[in-house]
Amino acid sequence: MGKGASGESPTLRQVGEFAVIDRLVRGRSQPAAVLLGPGDDAAVVSTGDGRTVVSTDMLVQDRHFRLDWSTPHDVGRKAIAQNAADIEAMGARVSAFVVGFGAPPDTPVAQIDALADGMWDEAGRIGAGIAGGDLVSCPQWVVSVTVLGELDGRPPVLRSGAKPGSVLAIAGELGRSAAGYSLLDKEINGFIDLRRRHVVPQPPYGAGALAAAAGAQAMIDVSDGLVADLRHVAEASGVGIDLSTAGLAVDHDALAAAASATGADAWSWVLGGGEDHALAACFAGAVPDGWRVIGRVLDGPPRVLVDGAQWQGYAGWESFGS
Amino acid sequence: MGKGASGESPTLRQVGEFAVIDRLVRGRSQPAAVLLGPGDDAAVVSTGDGRTVVSTDMLVQDRHFRLDWSTPHDVGRKAIAQNAADIEAMGARVSAFVVGFGAPPDTPVAQIDALADGMWDEAGRIGAGIAGGDLVSCPQWVVSVTVLGELDGRPPVLRSGAKPGSVLAIAGELGRSAAGYSLLDKEINGFIDLRRRHVVPQPPYGAGALAAAAGAQAMIDVSDGLVADLRHVAEASGVGIDLSTAGLAVDHDALAAAASATGADAWSWVLGGGEDHALAACFAGAVPDGWRVIGRVLDGPPRVLVDGAQWQGYAGWESFGS
Repeated sequence: MGKGASGESPTLRQVGEFAVIDRLVRGRSQPAAVLLGPGDDAAVVSTGDGRTVVSTDMLVQDRHFRLDWSTPHDVGRKAIAQNAADIEAMGARVSAFVVGFGAPPDTPVAQIDALADGMWDEAGRIGAGIAGGDLVSCPQWVVSVTVLGELDGRPPVLRSGAKPGSVLAIAGELGRSAAGYSLLDKEINGFIDLRRRHVVPQPPYGAGALAAAAGAQAMIDVSDGLVADLRHVAEASGVGIDLSTAGLAVDHDALAAAASATGADAWSWVLGGGEDHALAACFAGAVPDGWRVIGRVLDGPPRVLVDGAQWQGYAGWESFGS
Repeated sequence: MGKGASGESPTLRQVGEFAVIDRLVRGRSQPAAVLLGPGDDAAVVSTGDGRTVVSTDMLVQDRHFRLDWSTPHDVGRKAIAQNAADIEAMGARVSAFVVGFGAPPDTPVAQIDALADGMWDEAGRIGAGIAGGDLVSCPQWVVSVTVLGELDGRPPVLRSGAKPGSVLAIAGELGRSAAGYSLLDKEINGFIDLRRRHVVPQPPYGAGALAAAAGAQAMIDVSDGLVADLRHVAEASGVGIDLSTAGLAVDHDALAAAASATGADAWSWVLGGGEDHALAACFAGAVPDGWRVIGRVLDGPPRVLVDGAQWQGYAGWESFGS
């Protein structure tokens, strides 16, 4: 959304809440799981096996995204992707999203259209729809997404099931978002793929359900950083986890040039970078297609090691840190 | 939450995201419908008949609540109550909530505790639990609630089913929140019940499912104002709706003294005041217990009349109005 286009678009205040909602809703095609879409007091979503998996995330402008780095379309894709990853991490399948959006009254409606288009584009990659929402006035952009998912008769894959002797495997890539952030922050050109990956993550859609069907013992999505997130698995399961730099070398090597350009340590990105929304899971035996082994599960006490030693670098994001 | 207590409480930044979430989650008792509560990537909620009703609302500080008028506990109750009303308006029953909360890092944790307590108190009134959430840094408070509900095998009651010749009935009270707002805004003491009703609405819990079971044709919750919300029913159903001031006199009369004290017109509050979250529904025959007739359904075109004439006063809230 260029500044020119924004300047020509009428604003939220000019168009009004209900007319904007009409624009956002009109012409969208809901998947079969959305039994009743937007337009009433609530939506109705099908839940085949009598259980709904539900998760919610809030994204705040200048905290979780910057409108000089991301287009509104990118912000919409990111908000959907990171919520979908939470459903994947339960071994479930996304059925629908609902979205709360706050923005200043002088926001060009074209930007809201683009945000909604981004949400629908990303939801479409997983066959899901946006079943409802709320649009309010707020001093900055706040995007709050809630996602519903289905387990298709399987038990949810929790953080608490990891067993000593199992392998730790990952689906998706690590450190890309953190590398992209560093490149954007230092205004280093090139590395377009990495910069894009910060702006729009690419969770390994479908890998969570595949892991569940293959008997994954425990699973989590890497949102705060690999070491930080695996600590939750270690604590919930009462196990140690030992990461192998040999298993993670492919991620490290993919980031080496960008690390050199920014003066960063690629291992900090791989082990501490969040927002890639890769999935990490523990398996007793062979890992399914699309998964690769990066470590092993040890007896307790709960801790996360790297090649058998404690990791001293940056370990991950904290919401109220600076 | 007095200023003294706030001053003594550690802040979100000092305590940190994960420790605050631990405080909020610890010791809460989930209802049976919450199969898996907070602590994993997502929650799991039971949906008995294979459908989930879902709705979401976002509340922004100084737009939807003021922390000099409302305690954090009040804000929590209001956020839960207004979301629950959307589920009631479908003829459904609330099963669980998920909550996104944004606040500045210097927010006293005691205020977050009070907000969560208010949410749990209000959820407890309807036998529901808070199944999960997200806690992020934001320049002002933003509370985003998503509610899940169950239809117990019934079809949802939509806005679109009203038939000419039916009666329009209401459960709950009208104009109280608007009266309370005016009293608070003009700093008029007394009328404590009305001022409280602005701060914490009292939806008629259970009346929605009762209406659905009694064959309600169409239903809506009065969130923006009676006339404004009934316009949605009129348009969706292709009918006219004629409100009777005789039927609404009990609401008007209850507000007469406050109207006199503030110089307002009590009819503007009754017909245009939102946020009471009363329910309005159309019935072919007798209305169930707790409901009272306030008008009738006419042939189209879609319009809302008062005693057969167009209403000229304030008709309701618009998100990007001033």
